[in-house]
Amino acid sequence: MGIKEYGFTTLTPVDEALKTFLETLKPKPLAVEEVPSEHAFGRVLAEDVSAPVDAPGFDRSAMDGYAVRAEDTFNASPTSPALLRVVGRVETTLPPELKVGPGEAVEVSTGSPVPPGADAVVMLEYTRRVGDRLEVYRPVAAWENVDRAGMDYRRGSVVLRRGRVLRAQDVAALLMLGVASVRVYRKPRVAVLSTGDELVESFSELAPGRVVDVNRPMLKLLLSSLGCVPVDLGMSRDDVREVSRRISEGLEKADALLVSGGTSVGRRDVVPETLEILGADVVVHGVAMSPSRPTLLAVASGKPVIGMSGPPAAALMCFEVFAKPVLLRLMGVESHVRPYVRARLSRRAPSRLGVRSYVRVRLIPHPEGLTAEPVAARGSGLLSTVTEANGFIVVPENRDGLEAGEEVDVYLFEWGCRTFG
Amino acid sequence: MGIKEYGFTTLTPVDEALKTFLETLKPKPLAVEEVPSEHAFGRVLAEDVSAPVDAPGFDRSAMDGYAVRAEDTFNASPTSPALLRVVGRVETTLPPELKVGPGEAVEVSTGSPVPPGADAVVMLEYTRRVGDRLEVYRPVAAWENVDRAGMDYRRGSVVLRRGRVLRAQDVAALLMLGVASVRVYRKPRVAVLSTGDELVESFSELAPGRVVDVNRPMLKLLLSSLGCVPVDLGMSRDDVREVSRRISEGLEKADALLVSGGTSVGRRDVVPETLEILGADVVVHGVAMSPSRPTLLAVASGKPVIGMSGPPAAALMCFEVFAKPVLLRLMGVESHVRPYVRARLSRRAPSRLGVRSYVRVRLIPHPEGLTAEPVAARGSGLLSTVTEANGFIVVPENRDGLEAGEEVDVYLFEWGCRTFG
Repeated sequence: MGIKEYGFTTLTPVDEALKTFLETLKPKPLAVEEVPSEHAFGRVLAEDVSAPVDAPGFDRSAMDGYAVRAEDTFNASPTSPALLRVVGRVETTLPPELKVGPGEAVEVSTGSPVPPGADAVVMLEYTRRVGDRLEVYRPVAAWENVDRAGMDYRRGSVVLRRGRVLRAQDVAALLMLGVASVRVYRKPRVAVLSTGDELVESFSELAPGRVVDVNRPMLKLLLSSLGCVPVDLGMSRDDVREVSRRISEGLEKADALLVSGGTSVGRRDVVPETLEILGADVVVHGVAMSPSRPTLLAVASGKPVIGMSGPPAAALMCFEVFAKPVLLRLMGVESHVRPYVRARLSRRAPSRLGVRSYVRVRLIPHPEGLTAEPVAARGSGLLSTVTEANGFIVVPENRDGLEAGEEVDVYLFEWGCRTFG
Repeated sequence: MGIKEYGFTTLTPVDEALKTFLETLKPKPLAVEEVPSEHAFGRVLAEDVSAPVDAPGFDRSAMDGYAVRAEDTFNASPTSPALLRVVGRVETTLPPELKVGPGEAVEVSTGSPVPPGADAVVMLEYTRRVGDRLEVYRPVAAWENVDRAGMDYRRGSVVLRRGRVLRAQDVAALLMLGVASVRVYRKPRVAVLSTGDELVESFSELAPGRVVDVNRPMLKLLLSSLGCVPVDLGMSRDDVREVSRRISEGLEKADALLVSGGTSVGRRDVVPETLEILGADVVVHGVAMSPSRPTLLAVASGKPVIGMSGPPAAALMCFEVFAKPVLLRLMGVESHVRPYVRARLSRRAPSRLGVRSYVRVRLIPHPEGLTAEPVAARGSGLLSTVTEANGFIVVPENRDGLEAGEEVDVYLFEWGCRTFG
């Protein structure tokens, strides 16, 4: 055999790698800042928000009909209606003095306040009115058809919990309750560095042997849409001093670093050495996954540094598998889940025993459901393997590939969340 | 029985309502505009994009090792290595004149161009080098460990198809291939109108009987995050003339209209009458769903008008069920899918036969998986039913509720996509 001049001696399983990394890093959400509620969409709550008032603030009719005293209707039936006297009408606001006494009724609309004295609303359908005389054909129970004050949100109760990413309806609740501003976590600043002598900034500079650095723009988009602020560290040659300078800059400017390229074990892979020189704690180097085997997980100045394999599809999968869970914790998101769609494999999805494979698939709709077609096997780091795919399936370490016809969970790429084609 | 003064005589099933609406509307994507590729994230492609060049543009080594002529290695073995002469080295660019003749090898790194003459790369691990003398211990097949020119994207082949919402990796592909700009569909402008005498603009104006209009801010956020441009038509009183004026304004300014409130059949529900007066084609009024039964689907001036039930949770569900599929078609998205997570119902989810129920659930993580807990039954339009929920399950028309312990698909609300808690 030839000399094993380099190569990973051990590869860490994915789950162990992430667990060890998180245990070493102990990621915590960042500083807290206050934002007006109308600009809080997508931000992560840094506090439990309680209702400062009851909502609704008053007992509200849930139907068009008549506000009554429920007991006045208890024996009502089609053949023997309850007879009541209509003493007024409420549209949006309650006329002063108006109330419902025994044997009385007040006409209300959906959303109207229920006048004092009344404790139920009888639906229009079950009444007949002639002049101020009202026949009620069905009994109503106490508080039937009434949204009571505080029924939506009760004053003092927790409405939204810390760690919640605020959605459209959550912002609506803040506005409804008069919560003018909320405390949220500062967005993590995440520095992005590409390394590689072969890299050029744009297509116009391309020459034989040169490659456009697409990892930076790709990672910056992934970061923004996750809710982080990307910090561009540019490109670096495969040079310890230059990489070191850029990483140090990143550690000053940002809360986390993503470095792509140069993380393997070849002569030009200077990132591991650089991190050692900088005194970083390299927690994991080499993961039993495909693609992105040369993943490097380190902690420097208490900040996560994730070294990703250079090929774009490998960098993307490393982002999904390692960067996202770490960054969500820095964002303050307390728990999360990755949604999927179920599909049947159109053909065998190959993988190797002992390695967790992220097999990219294209979804094809059929009347009976979705088919997942593995993107044709080529270099697993090629960008086309992720542009031609709608998402990916995970082949566990103990499976030697998945078979045609197997049912699989397909995790969709961002935006692909909603669409395929 | 009392007089049935009003009420829907028939309710249209959800699927039929959407189908009929789409058949009447025949939604088409809007005008096409050109955007620079670096700003195309999230936009919908209006054209197929083909690769203007091969990527990679040259035969590229996929490994650190030696570029060789494969045939020179065919009989190599650990006991009888092939003997070659190293004639040079390539890092990022190819030195002029350098080529691999019979019996020769050139040192290459991952990503290096493979010199003329060579048709394979033998991995460093399977070689031993002394001076310019190289022993190769394994045969390589032709083009082994070489990413050939055009292997990622072949010149002239379609890279991204019309109707694709551009994701991070898609933008990366455009930049890699030197596609400076792409033609995308204009974002739909969607007008949002709230109706109701009881509405006030903000909490500070609240008074008994009044309600803060939270539907507009909520729908505007939902629209922006879907990829539409919201147009705010403000609030209108329940007055045919005022509603008519605002709807006409919306039809002038926007490509679609969402109107919340006033869509039922009571005295103050003026939206249906107003649309008739405006000559709109009211395709559906009243849907067999809960919540948002008083959904109204109309076409006016060729544009979709969706009338939503006023209670915020009802408006949100109507947006999910009717507005989204219609707007995605206006956006030009050709097919889409709604991802979910699987969970077990913690208790019975009630519903009524003949009605499709959208039961909102909270997700609770357990070691064995997720539990879906139906949000406590209250007024189904209350905002808290959607702020306390991570998503919803769909109880079909032919089921009288779902049972505790049943496995269900939980569709997550936006942003909830990623998080729960």
